[in-house]
Amino acid sequence: MVIKPYGYAIWEKMQAQLDKMFKETGHVNAYFPLFIPKSFFSKEASHVEGFAKECAVVTHYRLMNDPNGKGIIVDPDAKLEEELIVRPTSETIIWSTYKTWIQSYRDLPILVNQWANVVRWEMRTRLFLRTAEFLWQEGHTAHATSQEAMEEAERMVNVYATFVEEFMALPVIKGSKSANERFAGALETYTIEALMQDGKALQSGTSHFLGQNFAKAFDVRFTNKEGKEDFVWATSWGVSTRLMGALIMAHSDDNGLVLPPKLAPFQVVIVPIYKQDEQLAAISEKVDSIVSKLKALGISVKYDNNDTKKPGWKFAEYELKGVPVRIAIGPRDLENGTVEVARRDTLEKQVVSMDGIELYIQQLLDAIQENIYKKAFDYRTGMTTPVETYEEFKEVLQNKGGFISAHWDGTPETEQAIKDETKATIRCIPFDQVPEEGKCIYSGKPSKGRVLFALAY
Amino acid sequence: MVIKPYGYAIWEKMQAQLDKMFKETGHVNAYFPLFIPKSFFSKEASHVEGFAKECAVVTHYRLMNDPNGKGIIVDPDAKLEEELIVRPTSETIIWSTYKTWIQSYRDLPILVNQWANVVRWEMRTRLFLRTAEFLWQEGHTAHATSQEAMEEAERMVNVYATFVEEFMALPVIKGSKSANERFAGALETYTIEALMQDGKALQSGTSHFLGQNFAKAFDVRFTNKEGKEDFVWATSWGVSTRLMGALIMAHSDDNGLVLPPKLAPFQVVIVPIYKQDEQLAAISEKVDSIVSKLKALGISVKYDNNDTKKPGWKFAEYELKGVPVRIAIGPRDLENGTVEVARRDTLEKQVVSMDGIELYIQQLLDAIQENIYKKAFDYRTGMTTPVETYEEFKEVLQNKGGFISAHWDGTPETEQAIKDETKATIRCIPFDQVPEEGKCIYSGKPSKGRVLFALAY
Ligand SMILES: [Zn+2]
Ligand SMILES: [Zn+2]
Repeated sequence: MVIKPYGYAIWEKMQAQLDKMFKETGHVNAYFPLFIPKSFFSKEASHVEGFAKECAVVTHYRLMNDPNGKGIIVDPDAKLEEELIVRPTSETIIWSTYKTWIQSYRDLPILVNQWANVVRWEMRTRLFLRTAEFLWQEGHTAHATSQEAMEEAERMVNVYATFVEEFMALPVIKGSKSANERFAGALETYTIEALMQDGKALQSGTSHFLGQNFAKAFDVRFTNKEGKEDFVWATSWGVSTRLMGALIMAHSDDNGLVLPPKLAPFQVVIVPIYKQDEQLAAISEKVDSIVSKLKALGISVKYDNNDTKKPGWKFAEYELKGVPVRIAIGPRDLENGTVEVARRDTLEKQVVSMDGIELYIQQLLDAIQENIYKKAFDYRTGMTTPVETYEEFKEVLQNKGGFISAHWDGTPETEQAIKDETKATIRCIPFDQVPEEGKCIYSGKPSKGRVLFALAY
Repeated sequence: MVIKPYGYAIWEKMQAQLDKMFKETGHVNAYFPLFIPKSFFSKEASHVEGFAKECAVVTHYRLMNDPNGKGIIVDPDAKLEEELIVRPTSETIIWSTYKTWIQSYRDLPILVNQWANVVRWEMRTRLFLRTAEFLWQEGHTAHATSQEAMEEAERMVNVYATFVEEFMALPVIKGSKSANERFAGALETYTIEALMQDGKALQSGTSHFLGQNFAKAFDVRFTNKEGKEDFVWATSWGVSTRLMGALIMAHSDDNGLVLPPKLAPFQVVIVPIYKQDEQLAAISEKVDSIVSKLKALGISVKYDNNDTKKPGWKFAEYELKGVPVRIAIGPRDLENGTVEVARRDTLEKQVVSMDGIELYIQQLLDAIQENIYKKAFDYRTGMTTPVETYEEFKEVLQNKGGFISAHWDGTPETEQAIKDETKATIRCIPFDQVPEEGKCIYSGKPSKGRVLFALAY
C-alpha cells in the first residue's frame, strides 16, 4: 500500500489526535518486533484459529547472485530453523515480553500503545479497507484485576467513539460483538460501527477484554497485594488506516473528498484570480494579511499562487481533495474589499467583506464540521430500520441496506444461518439496547432486545 | 528489538524535532510498502551488491494446523511465485512508484520522507546499534537538475548535523565518504561522524546524492522546461534508532544515562522526603505550585510521590534514567523556603530558594545542555590526533583510539589495505578539510589534505 503525501497528512492528523487522547488516558508508547517466531502462535489456542492463518512467513535470511547469472535468488543455505511470522497483531510477542516486566502488583497496570505496521495476507485488496499491510495502533494493557481490565476496554472504545464522532464527523454505534464476531482469544469485544453512504457498515475500531487468556498462554503471573500469585488480566484495542477508508466513504460526493475541518491537512485554500502580474501583486499583498490573521487563529491555510495552473483547474483540484473552505480573490474584490468564500460541504458560495474575514472563516469551519456530522447522522437515522420478520429483514437488506434493528435469539447458530443466507452479520449488541420482549426474526425464539444487523466491509 | 516506554519517549522527542526540521525544509511524509518484490533488487546493479544480501525473505503466505497435530506449520501450497524482500531500505520500491508520479518538470521536485521500520539481517546484534529490525526515516527526493539534487543532499546532512549537535548535545564532523564507504548506488555520500566515549566513531546520519542511477534503473524520465526528455536526479538520506545508541554511548557515566534536557522525556523530577503523612501533604502543596510554575515555562516535570519506594531508591533510579535535574524537598526545606537541586551531568547539589526556582531551573537546563555538549566536544578535541607516519597511526589507534587525522593518497587500494591491517576505516573527508601538501601515511604518495580515520561501530 502506497499512502501519498496528502493522504498521509490526514493520517498524521488522526495519529496526533489519537496519540494525545491515549496519553491523556495514561498510556505510553513502546515498540515491539515485527517478526514473531512461529511457535508463539501455537500458545493461545483460539488465537491460532483466528490469526495464525493468512500471514506472511519469513523462511530465509539471505539472497545471492544466481550462479547461472540470472539476477538474484534466495540462498538455499540461509534457511531459518524456525520460521518468522510478520506480525498480524502483537498480542503474542508483547505478552512474551510482559512476562519479563511483571512480577508484582507494583508493576501493574502496564498501559502501553504501539504505532506499527501489520500484515494480514489478502488475496483481494481494496485501498485503505483491505490491504495486506496496514498501519495501525495497538494498545496492550495488563492489570491486577478483572474489573480494572474491563473498565480499560470500555474506556478505550469510548475514546475511539469520541475521536470518530468529534474529529471524523462520523456518528458511530457503540456495542459488544456477538461471540461469532469476537476477536480470537477475547472474552468480550467492544466495537464502534459506522454506516457508509452505500448502506454498508464499517467496523471502525475495536477494544478487547482478553481476560487471563494471554497471561495463561505466556505464563504471566504476579504477586497481588495479599501476597498471592495470580495471572494478569489483559486488554487490547486498535484502530488502523481503515479509518481513512471510513472517512472517504462516509463523506465523499461526486466532486471528491469532503474533509472535516479538524482533519484537513489545510483548512483553507486561497486562489487568486488575475490577468496581469500587477493584479497578482496587489492580490498577494491582501492575501498575506488574510493568511496572517487566519494563522493567528490556528487555522491552516495554503495560498496557491502557482502560475502554471488556471483558477478553474485549481477549484476542481481542491474540491477533489476536500479542502473545507476556498477563498477566491479577483481585481473586483480588491475594489470592493470583498472575497468569495466557497464551502466544500454544501458547495455554496458567498461574497464576504475582507474586514473580519478571519472570524467569519473560523465560524464557518465550525459550522462545516457540525454540518458534515449532521448529514451523516441524518443519513444513518434514515437508514436504520427496525424489522419484525425475516421476510421484512431480507427485503430491507436487499432494497434499502443500512442498519437493521431486529430481535435475535442470542445463539451463534441463528447468527451463522442468517449470515450464510443473506451475508448480513450482527454488527453489535448496542450499549444502549432497550430491554424489550420480542421474538427472534429467524427462529421465533424469545429475545430480550434488538441487535444491529448489516452488510459490512 | 523491544524499545521500552522510556526509551521510546526519547525516540518520540527525536522524531518530533526531526520531523519539524524536515517540514521546515519543505518535505512531506508518505508511506511505501514493507515488502519489495525480489526482482526490484536486480535493477540497480550496485544496489544488488550493497543491499540485496542479508535480507529477510518472505516465501509463503499461509500457516496451517499440522496434520500430525504438532502445532502449526507453513502451508506448502501457499508458496509465493516471486519472493518478497522485507525492505532493507526503500529506494527500489519508491523509484518504481515515482515512475507513475513524474511526467514533467512541473511534477518536480518531489520532497518526500518516510518514517518506517527496516530489516537488515544481522547475526550478531547489539541494542540500538546493530539490530535486524530498526526504526528510521528515509528521505527520497527527485529533482530536475543535478545541481538541485546535490544541494538537497548537502542541505539534509546539515539538518542532521544541526539536530545532533543542538538536541543530542553531540558534536559531529561533517564530510564526504570515500568511494569504498559510499552507499550502494550513490555518487556521493555525505556523513556526520560522532565520537563515542570508548574512542570509537559512530556514523550518525548519511545523505546520498544518487545521480540518475535509480531513475535509469526504474526508467523515470521527465520532460524539462525546454521540452526535452531527461532522467530524474535523486537523493536519499536517513537517520535511525542508531542515534539512541549514540546518545547512550556518548554521554553515559557510571551512574547511567545522562540525557540532554532537550530530549529528556521529563526534564525535572521532584522527590519528597518525609516521615509522616502530614509532612507529605505539606510538601505536596508546595510542589504543586512549583510544578505549575515550571510547566508555565514549558519545562516537563514529574512529581514522584510513590509511597512504596524510598527516596534513595528514587535518586538512583532517576540517575540511571538520566533525568537532567532532580529536586528534593523535605520538612526542613519547608521551614527554610528552600529545595535541594541536583544536576545529573555533574552530580552537583545545591540548596536553592523556592522563590524564583522556576527561573533558576530554566537557566540550569540550558547550562546542562551546553555543558554536556562542551564535555563531548572537549573529549573529541583531545581524542583527535594528527599523525605523520603509519607507525604513529597504528600506535595511536591501539593505545589511544579516537579520530586520527592523516594524509591518504586517495586510492581505494590504500584504504582497503589499512582496513585489512588495522580495522580502521576512513570515516570521512571533512567538509572543512584544510588544503595541505603531504604524503600518504601508507603509500608515501602525494596527498592534498588530511582525512579522518577511526575504528567504528
Ligand atoms: Zn487472540
Ligand atoms: Zn543503491
